[in-house]
Amino acid sequence: MRVSKLFTKTLRDAPADEVSKNAQLLIRAGFVYKEMAGAYAYLPLGIRVVEKIKQVVREEMNAIDSNELIMTSLQRKDVWEQTGRWDDKVVDIWFKTKLQDETEVGLGWSHEEPIVEMMKQYVRSYKDLPISLYQFQTKMRNELRAKSGIMRGREFVMKDMYSFHASAEDLERYYNKTIEAYKRVYDRLGIGEDTYVTFASGGAFTKFSHEFQTVCDAGEDVIYLHREKNIAVNEEVIDDAVKELGIDKNELEQVKTAETGNIFNFGTQKTDEMGLHFTGEDGKQQSLYIGSYGIGITRAMGVIAEKMSDDKGLVWPESIAPYMVYLVSIGENGQKAADSLYDELSAAGVEVLYDDRDERPGTKFADAELMGIPYRLTVSDRGVEAGKFEFTTRKTGQTEELSATEVKNRFTV
Amino acid sequence: MRVSKLFTKTLRDAPADEVSKNAQLLIRAGFVYKEMAGAYAYLPLGIRVVEKIKQVVREEMNAIDSNELIMTSLQRKDVWEQTGRWDDKVVDIWFKTKLQDETEVGLGWSHEEPIVEMMKQYVRSYKDLPISLYQFQTKMRNELRAKSGIMRGREFVMKDMYSFHASAEDLERYYNKTIEAYKRVYDRLGIGEDTYVTFASGGAFTKFSHEFQTVCDAGEDVIYLHREKNIAVNEEVIDDAVKELGIDKNELEQVKTAETGNIFNFGTQKTDEMGLHFTGEDGKQQSLYIGSYGIGITRAMGVIAEKMSDDKGLVWPESIAPYMVYLVSIGENGQKAADSLYDELSAAGVEVLYDDRDERPGTKFADAELMGIPYRLTVSDRGVEAGKFEFTTRKTGQTEELSATEVKNRFTV
Repeated sequence: MRVSKLFTKTLRDAPADEVSKNAQLLIRAGFVYKEMAGAYAYLPLGIRVVEKIKQVVREEMNAIDSNELIMTSLQRKDVWEQTGRWDDKVVDIWFKTKLQDETEVGLGWSHEEPIVEMMKQYVRSYKDLPISLYQFQTKMRNELRAKSGIMRGREFVMKDMYSFHASAEDLERYYNKTIEAYKRVYDRLGIGEDTYVTFASGGAFTKFSHEFQTVCDAGEDVIYLHREKNIAVNEEVIDDAVKELGIDKNELEQVKTAETGNIFNFGTQKTDEMGLHFTGEDGKQQSLYIGSYGIGITRAMGVIAEKMSDDKGLVWPESIAPYMVYLVSIGENGQKAADSLYDELSAAGVEVLYDDRDERPGTKFADAELMGIPYRLTVSDRGVEAGKFEFTTRKTGQTEELSATEVKNRFTV
Repeated sequence: MRVSKLFTKTLRDAPADEVSKNAQLLIRAGFVYKEMAGAYAYLPLGIRVVEKIKQVVREEMNAIDSNELIMTSLQRKDVWEQTGRWDDKVVDIWFKTKLQDETEVGLGWSHEEPIVEMMKQYVRSYKDLPISLYQFQTKMRNELRAKSGIMRGREFVMKDMYSFHASAEDLERYYNKTIEAYKRVYDRLGIGEDTYVTFASGGAFTKFSHEFQTVCDAGEDVIYLHREKNIAVNEEVIDDAVKELGIDKNELEQVKTAETGNIFNFGTQKTDEMGLHFTGEDGKQQSLYIGSYGIGITRAMGVIAEKMSDDKGLVWPESIAPYMVYLVSIGENGQKAADSLYDELSAAGVEVLYDDRDERPGTKFADAELMGIPYRLTVSDRGVEAGKFEFTTRKTGQTEELSATEVKNRFTV
């Protein structure tokens, strides 16, 4: 991509009403545009990051035999009434609207109920189980406050997965498999070391659910952490957990975190409430066991923007950077050499953002840093003569002098 | 993908309340699930078709230098009031809802206004132009009736593109370039020969706009067609068009069609209304020229399902089929050979749906036909002995006997 063809511009200042660091940086660098509090458009650079995070998650969910689908945003009242969750007193973040004939409909803030309703059409016998499904949905949540940038949106992208099982044991097996898949996701997103499987409030069926909490100063949660024993507990259940797990609260460290994922064991609660059954091997009708597993895609992007940034701007990990290389040309010969280097690298499959604008080098360097592209490649008249290019790593700021072949070898196998 | 891991089942009958042929077929084959009239979930097979259509469109839009982004579904009242289109009397298909503080918000049924609003942040001078942007959005339209399956949804996926220009001539140039890009899209989707660039009602700026109308019995439009001269006119403007274009109405054929795309020349109307200007080369403030270009992604899928189907089910064109090959094993040796053929073809990048279920061959054949997978490959005990596999083309029903190598050569270069 040529920067000259990118319509976004980097901005010196974020909008005055934007208080969160992640949104300030992402707006200034041209990744997102604020439509209203809690609702952001994802611009060409931003949508590439979103899609890369989705692809990491997709690969790991496919690897545990989950099927991708996409449910609707429009929600039927009768479906949610089966569990009592249509009521605004029970769920206080519904957006609701009406069809022309005055029928009330909701906008999906989660999808357990419609998925369970749908499965009535597909699950008959134990032979149909287990089943795992997931989607990347634009969730709508009527949050009272939305001041955390893309870390808490009224409209945001979530991966939600649901699994259906014939027994508690089979759900347990898949639940644990999912924990491992989630760990791989966070590792690949570059936040694995700072993300903890955390005991949290469990809901109806189990004492505890599990959250994936990522250490983040801008996070809205607090966890109690034992780094050595790798135990983490959400403060909301700390007293219960201390008793249950036999740990000493004084040994735990309090840390601010953001919840980047969660998994729930619903047991048979929802299938009992909604009447989703299957015929067992013994010919008898039984209730299904359900697990529910979320990852906030855009929230994860916000958390990464918060954590991986410095006073110059964003610092994307390679796995989700919108482009791998920011190519800067200086001078006339520099531009010719950069043109052909751009073509060569692109042809080799390297994702290059080529700053071909008629701007001062300092402006280009500052934009490269603000956007957080992992590597900058500078092609100057002087360098062309010497057959060397400046290769700068965003994270460390270190610069090497590389030949064209050395550059290519860095990115191609 | 193994059919045993696909949670959907083919159904003998579509729901009684489903009157459209496209949705009946897509529901029976397990591609979509009806949540409510006009709102369908896309199941694992269905989402693959949607994504393939999107990818065709994405490639062609990128080829004309358009930038992909994604705007929000939530819409601000003040943005739409600038053009008078917030009013339910002007736009009668709004879904509206409220934030917790009683602020009214809408759900995006189109995105001209928010895009123009956003561009105020990015367009300053003639040097910034032209700009072209597009998105794949889940549009929400509160349609009074929704009986055409996925051909007219209350919630549906649309590609909408917007281009911004310094002059009428530059818009005209891009407008014509887009017509050619759209033709390539419909060609690649397999409906090029049946899709006509059609004169339609123009709106405020031009006498005519252009629609892409695809011949389809289930369509809601009627066009007047001169096949030899390749002239098509929407009946809504036939009298004007006859005068303007100097054609004889009696020479035209009336045809039922579905609008699969449209393009509008807005001129400077919206930028004048909303106050989006740029500084020209002469230093003076000028209004931008805007074009708007839509393709109904899920509607196109519905039209293709209507047109490319027979009494046995769907018949997908190769370009958007969810899988290329439906692999059927018969007997014990057949299964062993099918297992390794599945692995080999998958490794070679061929998309294979492998029916590994313990079902009668007739059931498997019927499912392959209902799902409309372009090729069926049958591996039987008898065939394994002879080293030959049955290779059946869905569209023609023709069967050939091929060796494993011949099968692979069909799909790999």
